[in-house]
Amino acid sequence: MTSNLDLELYEREPPIPPGEYVRVGSDVLKGFTRKLFTGAGLSSEDAEVVAEVLVTADLMGISSHGVQRVRRYIDGVLKCCVNPRPRVRLLRDGGAVALLDADGGLGHPVGVKAMEVAIEKAKTFGVSLVLVRNSQHYGIAGYYALKAVWKGLIGVSVTNSEKLVAYVNTTSRVLGTNPIAIGVPRPRPPPILFDAATAVVPVGKIELYAKLGKAVREGWVLGRDGSLLSGDAAEVLGEIKNGRAAILPLGGLGEEFGGHKGSGLAFMVDVIAGVLSGAAWGMHVGYTTGEKPANVGHAFAAINVESFMSMEEFHSRVEKYVEEIKSLPKHPRADRIWLPGEKAWYTMQTRLKVGIPLHKNVCKELNQVASDIGVEDRINCE
Amino acid sequence: MTSNLDLELYEREPPIPPGEYVRVGSDVLKGFTRKLFTGAGLSSEDAEVVAEVLVTADLMGISSHGVQRVRRYIDGVLKCCVNPRPRVRLLRDGGAVALLDADGGLGHPVGVKAMEVAIEKAKTFGVSLVLVRNSQHYGIAGYYALKAVWKGLIGVSVTNSEKLVAYVNTTSRVLGTNPIAIGVPRPRPPPILFDAATAVVPVGKIELYAKLGKAVREGWVLGRDGSLLSGDAAEVLGEIKNGRAAILPLGGLGEEFGGHKGSGLAFMVDVIAGVLSGAAWGMHVGYTTGEKPANVGHAFAAINVESFMSMEEFHSRVEKYVEEIKSLPKHPRADRIWLPGEKAWYTMQTRLKVGIPLHKNVCKELNQVASDIGVEDRINCE
Repeated sequence: MTSNLDLELYEREPPIPPGEYVRVGSDVLKGFTRKLFTGAGLSSEDAEVVAEVLVTADLMGISSHGVQRVRRYIDGVLKCCVNPRPRVRLLRDGGAVALLDADGGLGHPVGVKAMEVAIEKAKTFGVSLVLVRNSQHYGIAGYYALKAVWKGLIGVSVTNSEKLVAYVNTTSRVLGTNPIAIGVPRPRPPPILFDAATAVVPVGKIELYAKLGKAVREGWVLGRDGSLLSGDAAEVLGEIKNGRAAILPLGGLGEEFGGHKGSGLAFMVDVIAGVLSGAAWGMHVGYTTGEKPANVGHAFAAINVESFMSMEEFHSRVEKYVEEIKSLPKHPRADRIWLPGEKAWYTMQTRLKVGIPLHKNVCKELNQVASDIGVEDRINCE
Repeated sequence: MTSNLDLELYEREPPIPPGEYVRVGSDVLKGFTRKLFTGAGLSSEDAEVVAEVLVTADLMGISSHGVQRVRRYIDGVLKCCVNPRPRVRLLRDGGAVALLDADGGLGHPVGVKAMEVAIEKAKTFGVSLVLVRNSQHYGIAGYYALKAVWKGLIGVSVTNSEKLVAYVNTTSRVLGTNPIAIGVPRPRPPPILFDAATAVVPVGKIELYAKLGKAVREGWVLGRDGSLLSGDAAEVLGEIKNGRAAILPLGGLGEEFGGHKGSGLAFMVDVIAGVLSGAAWGMHVGYTTGEKPANVGHAFAAINVESFMSMEEFHSRVEKYVEEIKSLPKHPRADRIWLPGEKAWYTMQTRLKVGIPLHKNVCKELNQVASDIGVEDRINCE
């Protein structure tokens, strides 16, 4: 029993307060973003991919991974350690696996390439695993999983990221929010798209709360002395950024509610995407504007459904399962029974129609970036 | 900084109160358990595997998955739907993937076979995925991941299981505790072994609390009306068993602490191990003593480390990461900084020396099973 929520106008992260935002068409925003990256020195192919992944995040209502990253990415290119013209190299290629070196470029173009390799290998061998070293931030993990879904495969992507999260029973930042994305094809959209940080909350949520003046919940953030930090989100965010606090893993503090599970998952993601790929791991993973190449590691896997059963049978079975979940008794305080990825999907459909709500500060920042790097275009921020 | 905890005598789940337990040598317990299963009609090879997996769980301090399952397994054989002499069939075998039909037998023997196939395929193709349908309970997921680790590979195993857990924003049991196990080789034991239910707690923990007269924490269990159940563990356990309550997913109630992540992970495990394998899924997964074959589904994957880097390099990188984790500031209320699998490993080393603490009721139950099926051996329960 689902509620009467209007999915036609649904946005998972509505613009609040609306006056602080402008609506920008996704094509306009993508075109402008692409120009900023070519202006910063990226090839037009790579700029297209980076713009596409960033704007997809904004369309999906994951603004923390959207065009608000442009300034950081381009600063990374201009100041030091993001390579605008990487030569991606295939270091190993054997059977169902491969290893790529991203040559210090942004993670999005190499991520798309790696997933394309994973898809081809899975079509041949049934399953595949492609690792990437020496990369940078790649945006939303789910984007790559969806690449496989559009080809009728199950797609998986994980990445490590700069330290923000405490390992269970410790008090300092050592793990990234190391997300896990798994996409599953359905006969009709929305596809199933699980895409979740292994932290209890993404840092973007605390950033959002800081902006809205909301209070951080007790159980999200741990101080260096082992106490839980809560209350004013701007203050808590400051403590995280300066290293005096860490986000807790999924499962929270200690083991009572599974903090060992969340931090263990983050650690396992890092062992595969970071350690096994030859990238940095844990506290060594850098960030886009750092003083050395971030050396982020990613992993991409695909599973060929038709190696196990016909696509018709798989679709039919998935749809039955979905129907069963949707028919469950809804919790009285829940708005709706959501499948993984549905909120993002419906937000995207809404925003393809009405535009992306861009915070005016982000909008002005993009124009400032354009000015800084000598790109003549501007977007309208009023 | 780790504490002075005595690992030489460490047990993650010590016998409390000690007077209710007898210590039984693991070889004795395994030999006796094997005889019970051959007595129930299993082949000696299959009985050996089932006994080995069950006793390994007891050695690791996971008694909920140890020999206390014998009665249920053998009841399943005697009363109806566990096939004591399954003919495991290879339904599909292509490249790096395979699909097995367990023919309604216990999950342990087919699990070992499936992981052996996964290991061989990963050695050839770098990565592999083997699915199993029409199976039964397979014990601890970590056992199969370790099979790969002993061959120098990264091992993964997941399974679905009978409904116990609520999907996010709903209030009834629909998902299994669907565990995820990932094992990583190290130069010396203990190996890294992540093995965790995607529920906030395993049902075994609530069973243990019921026995100890401890209170269930608020945030573990959800009533059908949407309220959180806590307090007397025996009562709460009764509510779960009769379907009036469900265990919450990892991340707890709603989305605020990530309940959508835990239930999403459980759902993804089920899509691969249940839906894609051709097994049952969600509410359809049966149990060992049910009135129809449980049709449990499992998945096994292996990653060949040496497809990506030399084992020496991998070992060296893992050891550096481990050292860094162990050197983190410990939380003041934590006993120690544990790697995934360390508690189980040290418990096993202790119990290999001093024996497995077997609850006298379980001990007597095993003797009763022996009597029921005409096996002459007994173990000493005093």
